[in-house]
Amino acid sequence: MLTCNKDRVQKKIETFATFGDAGHGGITRFSLSEEALDARVEFVKRMKAVGVETVTDDMANMYATLPGTEDNLPRIVMASHCDSVRNGGNYDGILGVITAMEVVETIAIEKISHRHPITAMIWTNEEGSLYPPAMMSSGVICGKFDKAKMLSSKNSEGKTFGEALDQSGYVGEKANRLNPIDYMAMLELHIEQGPVLEAEKKQIGVVEGVVGMVNYRIKTYGQSDHAGTTPMPYRRDALLAAASALKYLHAELDKLDSNLVYTTGEILCHPCVHTVIPDFVDFSLDARHQNPEVIKQVVEIIKNMPKEFDKCEVKYQEAWARSTIEFNEELVDFVQKSADEYGYTSKKMYSGAGHDAQYVAEMMPTTMIFVPSKDGHSHCEPEFTAVDECFRGINVVLQTVLEIDKK
Amino acid sequence: MLTCNKDRVQKKIETFATFGDAGHGGITRFSLSEEALDARVEFVKRMKAVGVETVTDDMANMYATLPGTEDNLPRIVMASHCDSVRNGGNYDGILGVITAMEVVETIAIEKISHRHPITAMIWTNEEGSLYPPAMMSSGVICGKFDKAKMLSSKNSEGKTFGEALDQSGYVGEKANRLNPIDYMAMLELHIEQGPVLEAEKKQIGVVEGVVGMVNYRIKTYGQSDHAGTTPMPYRRDALLAAASALKYLHAELDKLDSNLVYTTGEILCHPCVHTVIPDFVDFSLDARHQNPEVIKQVVEIIKNMPKEFDKCEVKYQEAWARSTIEFNEELVDFVQKSADEYGYTSKKMYSGAGHDAQYVAEMMPTTMIFVPSKDGHSHCEPEFTAVDECFRGINVVLQTVLEIDKK
Repeated sequence: MLTCNKDRVQKKIETFATFGDAGHGGITRFSLSEEALDARVEFVKRMKAVGVETVTDDMANMYATLPGTEDNLPRIVMASHCDSVRNGGNYDGILGVITAMEVVETIAIEKISHRHPITAMIWTNEEGSLYPPAMMSSGVICGKFDKAKMLSSKNSEGKTFGEALDQSGYVGEKANRLNPIDYMAMLELHIEQGPVLEAEKKQIGVVEGVVGMVNYRIKTYGQSDHAGTTPMPYRRDALLAAASALKYLHAELDKLDSNLVYTTGEILCHPCVHTVIPDFVDFSLDARHQNPEVIKQVVEIIKNMPKEFDKCEVKYQEAWARSTIEFNEELVDFVQKSADEYGYTSKKMYSGAGHDAQYVAEMMPTTMIFVPSKDGHSHCEPEFTAVDECFRGINVVLQTVLEIDKK
Repeated sequence: MLTCNKDRVQKKIETFATFGDAGHGGITRFSLSEEALDARVEFVKRMKAVGVETVTDDMANMYATLPGTEDNLPRIVMASHCDSVRNGGNYDGILGVITAMEVVETIAIEKISHRHPITAMIWTNEEGSLYPPAMMSSGVICGKFDKAKMLSSKNSEGKTFGEALDQSGYVGEKANRLNPIDYMAMLELHIEQGPVLEAEKKQIGVVEGVVGMVNYRIKTYGQSDHAGTTPMPYRRDALLAAASALKYLHAELDKLDSNLVYTTGEILCHPCVHTVIPDFVDFSLDARHQNPEVIKQVVEIIKNMPKEFDKCEVKYQEAWARSTIEFNEELVDFVQKSADEYGYTSKKMYSGAGHDAQYVAEMMPTTMIFVPSKDGHSHCEPEFTAVDECFRGINVVLQTVLEIDKK
């Protein structure tokens, strides 16, 4: 079967790892930073080497399109991002860009006949590390975010995203934006960012969608008193109440479907002084599952939680929620078929993390392909996926693109 | 029986409440601040009005001594502090100073014959609000702290305590320091800062000592992973482990003596991001009891705690400890006898908070008298003790001084 070129993939991984190299195995490459602009130059150069010109849109998203034999047909696009979090790894986002380049290069170099134009794309500012929010450009282009508001997003030094965009030299025409008329499908390859594929010894994650989630704040209200002078029976300790509420929620949520994930990552304690009984604690509860019925059960558990723990009032508040996004079934089937044809082991799964693809999925047929993450780590320097794993993932994308091309 | 003058007490409470009035019922009067210097001027003026001169020592502690009929006898001293915490109340510390003044005034005005000189004293910087540590001057004078080190203690703007001391105009001779040759006993009246006297409808707290304490840090070590991509069985959540450890410690410590108080006031969570599983949590455990055997049991429980909760390693570390201070039994008996003679209800108790008296107790016979705190509140603007309660407490001090004087 046709495959991409593993040496070329390896070289691309190595080259892009130099743009923002933090010196200890990972990278920091904020969107539109000097390092990210170096990555863009490399992208343009590589695409030009196979005869493909790159254009940009008004959010500086980049599009390098290899013409097909029938240029009036809509394009097939592969997209991801080249920006990272602070002290991130060498795979999150950039591997999807490398994939897009490698597929275009393989098809161009191998002179594989294809009817539709095939586009390699870079999204601007997926991480939102300097200029929040995350998935900014896909959010603007898919109508989730107001562009003017995004342009005024500030970094910690007060510089706006709009200023950074103007200075980048990559602002192009709005007419070049990804859209459902000129494009027929989008694919995004990404590292799993979790431990499941590795643990279950699967080579390809056939992604069916992005899980829905709710995010609540749980708050406990006690009474601040002196740690030395207040006998135990007189206390209303908001931190003890928070610990009780957290243990209660774990016990109840653990009874739900085993695919549910839920997390308390943030806790605030007031006044947070070792000699004072806390009077207020506020913690987050993030819960994710592909089935909206399970999310409803989570909300029921939160709403039916006791109103009081350890003599402290307990309140909850929804911070935000998003619905499950289901990827295009036909594309999911193409991905599964491609993986099977190569003889790769695979697993159908949902993404627990957010990706640009989830916004695009509401505009046109879209899906994602996952490759394993070593030890499940991501957004950190130990983030790693062996080149053999990348190679398999890129082959699946290549085959899926050619499959879509037959439509 | 002889009593102090309730109107005079009320006026003193009102007058001193103006020095640092925060405008909403409480005060902020940092040591050596303009407001604290106003309070010192008022002290000197009031003492002078009854013919008593004030001297200071090298830490700016103030001593106003009413001569007795036998001036070669050692002095009886009543002492407390006039500085407060930020947005503190009108009673913590200053009520002990008002007591000292009122007793001297009563004895002088009523021309009550007494053999020993009687001293009203103000300690400098008990709270340590601007210049840590707390109980700074008593610590220096009783040999707990190095004076040079204390002089170099800095406020948040980089000014040293030594500079503030020099600028105060209150630095006197080291020879004037409280010492166990020139002084025979120290009494300190203070608000309880807890809810016990009020709840048990007792008018006077006969304080037997200051409870010993240990302060530990409990740390849990997990693994940071993505909240969306990490299935529950793969997680090592340091915050869940901390909640489990906290609940475990409460369950075990609750089995010990009912006078034990213990508090987790401080909790730190890393990285404290709602989409990331915490990898490290560190919380405080402060435990206090008058009986060292009970404190030993607390330490045993901490040391025998499971080494792991929820797949996270748990470690402990002693931050600091102090032993129980027992006050002078004869003085405690005098206080009890005085309270009984007035027909006041009383309760023998230990102080759960630290006071200058605990350092002095290691140098000379010392004890304390508590009056009730409304709702147990202290170090906050609602801190309140009715003038009738203050009046009773001051009478007990007056009678105790006269009892000591007979020795």
